[in-house]
Amino acid sequence: MEDQKIIGIDLGGTSIKFAILNQEGEIQQRWSQETNILDEGSHIIPDIIESINHHLDIYDMKPTQFSGIGMGSPGSVDRENGTVIGAFNLNWKQLVYPKRDIEAGTHIPFYIDNDANVAALGERWKGAGDNQPDVTFVTLGTGIGGGIIANDRLLHGVSGSAGEIGHVTVDPKGYLCTCGKHGCLETVASATGVVRVARDMAEEYAGTAKLKELLDAGEEISSKIVFDLAKEGDPLATAVVDRVSYYLGFALANIGNTLNPSFIVVGGGVSAAGEFLLDKVRVAFAQNTFPNVRENTKIRLATLGNEAGVIGAASLVLENNKD
Amino acid sequence: MEDQKIIGIDLGGTSIKFAILNQEGEIQQRWSQETNILDEGSHIIPDIIESINHHLDIYDMKPTQFSGIGMGSPGSVDRENGTVIGAFNLNWKQLVYPKRDIEAGTHIPFYIDNDANVAALGERWKGAGDNQPDVTFVTLGTGIGGGIIANDRLLHGVSGSAGEIGHVTVDPKGYLCTCGKHGCLETVASATGVVRVARDMAEEYAGTAKLKELLDAGEEISSKIVFDLAKEGDPLATAVVDRVSYYLGFALANIGNTLNPSFIVVGGGVSAAGEFLLDKVRVAFAQNTFPNVRENTKIRLATLGNEAGVIGAASLVLENNKD
Repeated sequence: MEDQKIIGIDLGGTSIKFAILNQEGEIQQRWSQETNILDEGSHIIPDIIESINHHLDIYDMKPTQFSGIGMGSPGSVDRENGTVIGAFNLNWKQLVYPKRDIEAGTHIPFYIDNDANVAALGERWKGAGDNQPDVTFVTLGTGIGGGIIANDRLLHGVSGSAGEIGHVTVDPKGYLCTCGKHGCLETVASATGVVRVARDMAEEYAGTAKLKELLDAGEEISSKIVFDLAKEGDPLATAVVDRVSYYLGFALANIGNTLNPSFIVVGGGVSAAGEFLLDKVRVAFAQNTFPNVRENTKIRLATLGNEAGVIGAASLVLENNKD
Repeated sequence: MEDQKIIGIDLGGTSIKFAILNQEGEIQQRWSQETNILDEGSHIIPDIIESINHHLDIYDMKPTQFSGIGMGSPGSVDRENGTVIGAFNLNWKQLVYPKRDIEAGTHIPFYIDNDANVAALGERWKGAGDNQPDVTFVTLGTGIGGGIIANDRLLHGVSGSAGEIGHVTVDPKGYLCTCGKHGCLETVASATGVVRVARDMAEEYAGTAKLKELLDAGEEISSKIVFDLAKEGDPLATAVVDRVSYYLGFALANIGNTLNPSFIVVGGGVSAAGEFLLDKVRVAFAQNTFPNVRENTKIRLATLGNEAGVIGAASLVLENNKD
């Protein structure tokens, strides 16, 4: 039915965000609760079921008024079976069954995908992606995640690793990544990567720079501090941001050469550095893209912030109804 | 109708190949003719129309017995409008109208895409792609072309450049490419690229090697000669093939990290070097891929040879009937 609503859930290690949306992706109700990761995360799914049923009571709504529930989850997601394994920030080490349990507990069809894919769908639908058929999303956080929409559909690949943009190799002789290989984009352009590059460049830096002073004094630095100092003109911080931007622009250029999306949308904590970061990224992007791609694929900042998760989760329901 | 036939056309600079196929992609008739590129290629489309109508007469078939004609073409193809521009090996410098003219001349619906995309569809459907939903194809010829099928659909991107694998940057400080940027895969791993790498490495090579002798004697060398000498153990030729394979493996690894296809199918003249080449490519691919991709995305040789074009062109008809 056209006026059916959708529930979007953004499941994270600290909070679970919920929203009720209409078919146009407009949020009509929203709420959230803390994530209880005690007892191997065994309270999480019952909490979600209770929260949904409780809020349907409050709003005097019935399960039949919903076309589905969509959820973005950390960990390794099996979309067909609706299971998750290895979501360590939820304490979900063993296989859990969100689809089976939430459908039984709410009587609403349930769809699930990983959080980066879901955020990609959200930004594409209602954010910087302008609802175009070809949009790539990259999120620069503690790690780097990604999601690719092509021909209006999310890509998963043969074993669910499509969009692993954080593990694109940008420097084959570079830092060892947690994934076991060297020189992944994540090792240099995630929040932790930026700090790693800063520490390494500081060691070899001979001049005077505030960033070097902070590091030499043993201060905790963050990627935000590095970007803030670069914006103030600190020479070492500028060199760090230039190097990080180069790697990011190189990786996004080859994604552009391969996929030629309308937009490559950049989100996540590191993207708070804004156009200051993107302007530098665009230089390396232009150097490394085929002319038609350089002219037609645009790099943009994400616009939805925290809401990308619930909106994208809701669009997962529409995505699955296309099948 | 299920028993309708399809006509596949592979339009090239020296010959035009035709085939009549059934809906399962089995070739039932085939013929070809020389490409007449005189008079700015103005004879090509009339020749195609005449050839089709002539062969339908011979086989006593009517236009209504065909669900469509598919054609792969060089140049820049506008799929929606069915036009081509800048196909220099056909002398088509100006805009030509294959769809308009061939539909008017044969009364059969006509679909067109560029030759690399069409070959990708062919290899995916009846060749090394095992008809999987996610298959990437790369063709190593005079240049390097590519085509990407994801979620069962060919990718084009916002401006038709999806799959420009030849212009993935593998060495930002590398050779200048015809496209205007530096270090494109095509500059080192196409047939001409292999020879370029050989000439450059020979200049710096101090030892004794047959390949160096040939080059020093001013002999014409080809990529085939380089691979043949490497297979015989020639040290310089081996070093050249190792470098070429490294770049190819690096580029395919990042395509794997981005798309996680079932297969990356390698075709074109240079792929005649066979498993000798692919085994080396797989080393660099393994070094630069995320573990899940390394385990699940396989590199394979193309199997259809010259027939990929007509088979893929035919599948273009099926592809378009999905819309």
